[in-house]
Amino acid sequence: MSSISVLVLSCSLKPTPAPSSSVLLGTQVLDALRESGESQGVEVTGEVVRVVDHDVRFGVTTDEGGGDGWPPLRDKMLRADILVLATPIWMGQPASVCKMVLERLDAEVSETDEQGRMLTYGKVAVVAVVGNEDGAHHTTAELFQSLNDVGFTVAASGSTYWVGEAMQAVDYNDHETTPEKTDGTTKTAAGTALHLARLLQDHPYPGPPG
Amino acid sequence: MSSISVLVLSCSLKPTPAPSSSVLLGTQVLDALRESGESQGVEVTGEVVRVVDHDVRFGVTTDEGGGDGWPPLRDKMLRADILVLATPIWMGQPASVCKMVLERLDAEVSETDEQGRMLTYGKVAVVAVVGNEDGAHHTTAELFQSLNDVGFTVAASGSTYWVGEAMQAVDYNDHETTPEKTDGTTKTAAGTALHLARLLQDHPYPGPPG
Amino acid sequence: MSSISVLVLSCSLKPTPAPSSSVLLGTQVLDALRESGESQGVEVTGEVVRVVDHDVRFGVTTDEGGGDGWPPLRDKMLRADILVLATPIWMGQPASVCKMVLERLDAEVSETDEQGRMLTYGKVAVVAVVGNEDGAHHTTAELFQSLNDVGFTVAASGSTYWVGEAMQAVDYNDHETTPEKTDGTTKTAAGTALHLARLLQDHPYPGPPG
Amino acid sequence: MSSISVLVLSCSLKPTPAPSSSVLLGTQVLDALRESGESQGVEVTGEVVRVVDHDVRFGVTTDEGGGDGWPPLRDKMLRADILVLATPIWMGQPASVCKMVLERLDAEVSETDEQGRMLTYGKVAVVAVVGNEDGAHHTTAELFQSLNDVGFTVAASGSTYWVGEAMQAVDYNDHETTPEKTDGTTKTAAGTALHLARLLQDHPYPGPPG
Repeated sequence: MSSISVLVLSCSLKPTPAPSSSVLLGTQVLDALRESGESQGVEVTGEVVRVVDHDVRFGVTTDEGGGDGWPPLRDKMLRADILVLATPIWMGQPASVCKMVLERLDAEVSETDEQGRMLTYGKVAVVAVVGNEDGAHHTTAELFQSLNDVGFTVAASGSTYWVGEAMQAVDYNDHETTPEKTDGTTKTAAGTALHLARLLQDHPYPGPPG
Repeated sequence: MSSISVLVLSCSLKPTPAPSSSVLLGTQVLDALRESGESQGVEVTGEVVRVVDHDVRFGVTTDEGGGDGWPPLRDKMLRADILVLATPIWMGQPASVCKMVLERLDAEVSETDEQGRMLTYGKVAVVAVVGNEDGAHHTTAELFQSLNDVGFTVAASGSTYWVGEAMQAVDYNDHETTPEKTDGTTKTAAGTALHLARLLQDHPYPGPPG
Repeated sequence: MSSISVLVLSCSLKPTPAPSSSVLLGTQVLDALRESGESQGVEVTGEVVRVVDHDVRFGVTTDEGGGDGWPPLRDKMLRADILVLATPIWMGQPASVCKMVLERLDAEVSETDEQGRMLTYGKVAVVAVVGNEDGAHHTTAELFQSLNDVGFTVAASGSTYWVGEAMQAVDYNDHETTPEKTDGTTKTAAGTALHLARLLQDHPYPGPPG
Repeated sequence: MSSISVLVLSCSLKPTPAPSSSVLLGTQVLDALRESGESQGVEVTGEVVRVVDHDVRFGVTTDEGGGDGWPPLRDKMLRADILVLATPIWMGQPASVCKMVLERLDAEVSETDEQGRMLTYGKVAVVAVVGNEDGAHHTTAELFQSLNDVGFTVAASGSTYWVGEAMQAVDYNDHETTPEKTDGTTKTAAGTALHLARLLQDHPYPGPPG
């Protein structure tokens, strides 16, 4: 039985134990990946990490030193086959904590193997976005572009999201039951991501041409 | 009594008489400007134009020739003190028709007066965005940036919008009454835009230095 | 020997025979795919189509009627394994013609097979962006997000671009030789896209659950 | 003689004394505002603050407590007539530190005076963006939209930027002399911003209706 490892990074601005919609949606993506694993015959393991619980520093290197919290998270990322980046929306845009994570991932451009491939090559990224209102498509766009820049692959229908009506204040985690459209979208994204991660696990990308 | 002229360009993909939420919201902005005019002691005149009813051509000049529909719309724009750009959202982004209008406005960068000022200097832009769901903040961002690039000024709280909850299909013009939050936002944007347009009418920007 | 079919859609604002940097870069992506095909043992066929040469209408359906030029282009897209979307930058953003193409592709959300999969599932999208200056990352972001929304998969390092220094006016097709960085990026994108398109050809995505 | 106060917030990822292109460009905007002040007969005072030198916390309130570095910066912002937000580009997007600042400014939506106006009303925002390559227009778009959301006004041609050619690594502060186009753009932005800040100082916006 093949096995796929998942890392969910939640980019909430607030540390545990504050409630977090992006932790909730990220967890639901992980659950959906496990469920897809059952139907695709794959063992899916993984965990959800709230980035702001760790002392991650601003910067664009793999290790900013002085007790930087990124290196252990980076190790988890390097061991994962699927990275789920879950972020809240603020002002219609990705959270600052999410931008901080992307800047740390930017270091991967220089971390290549003997064939010139980034260590992220072959990993699939899933994007999960949540806010009171408006901003999910744009946030997804920014995350796809930056994650792809640093080597991740994006499966068909590779994101999920929830937002409320314009200028509303209800949170995703205020819902008693998961909004149906978001639930279906989460499951679709999980199914395609898992399929693609397995393919790339078995058939790695070639290195860039000479 | 001072007087302010308004041009609303609606960027619906469908020509008249198809129903259009962006025509509706654009008309509401014009109405709110008229109402603000009454309280600020200003006569506000204006009209709403649906761009796709005219034969506007793709391009980046003031006149693409061969019966291009842009030059008459450009004349209206040049006579207006306030330009309201009203666009639907498609895929979380501004409509293609809106991008076509912005590309035509890009020609203004080269159309300067004897002091080196674009002919758009002193005009205020208001952005109105509407969609079934998600995309208003990003659409507003793109419109502010490109309108500002070509000389327009943006008043405080200079936009209005409506979108529904994630992945819903209700249109703005399906509502029997205007959503309250959007209504208030429209009126606020009209008030600040009118105030600023009057100031700039009385006190034109200086030209660029030497 | 397996075979991969490519469609390049260039979103220049000007019809043939006007010179076009996006046609040039799109053609280079096709050449790089052919070259990758040789090293990966795959026959690559394809063509470059300049969208504005055809009478494509604004809209969000598969056929807007009345001589709409989109249906024949859609047929080509449906037969292709890889779609290369090549667009110029205007005002730091994708061209209106490109947005028009994306809006037409939005119709694919409703065009699903008996397993609930969009007809685009399994196709890989490559993005090629070119401008005098600034805007490639953002244009790429918008294209990745909307192409992924409508079923396309994005390979690692799945885009290429060229832009000049801030506020410069040199065109990509003014260069006597291809800028080296862009050339390498084009070849890398071609290699990953081809690899992924072959995998998905052999191993189609599952349909959505339920 | 009238007087205008300026706050430049630089969003470099690195604290002092690391060299910073966004500090440099922000300082040049302040110098240009002083120069414009001389020609417009206005005394311009101000300072440049590197945000990351202060212990600003993630959050969306005016004071996150526990020694949060934002409240003193907020006081400076509230005393200023012009806010210059200067940010580096990372991955084609605004820096995380800049997003953190915008999130803190989001609190201003609830901080209104007796007429219902945000305390930022009447302040003019100038955006200054700098990177090795590509991303200035998009960064400007995101900053304009979010700064406008929280009450700032944007003057005609209200931003300045520098970026290098695609995929290059030269920094703005590597130049021996300021690139000419950027220098002119900086001066133009300073002239319009100063003019507008004076107008709004003398003629405050009305409060929202109702």
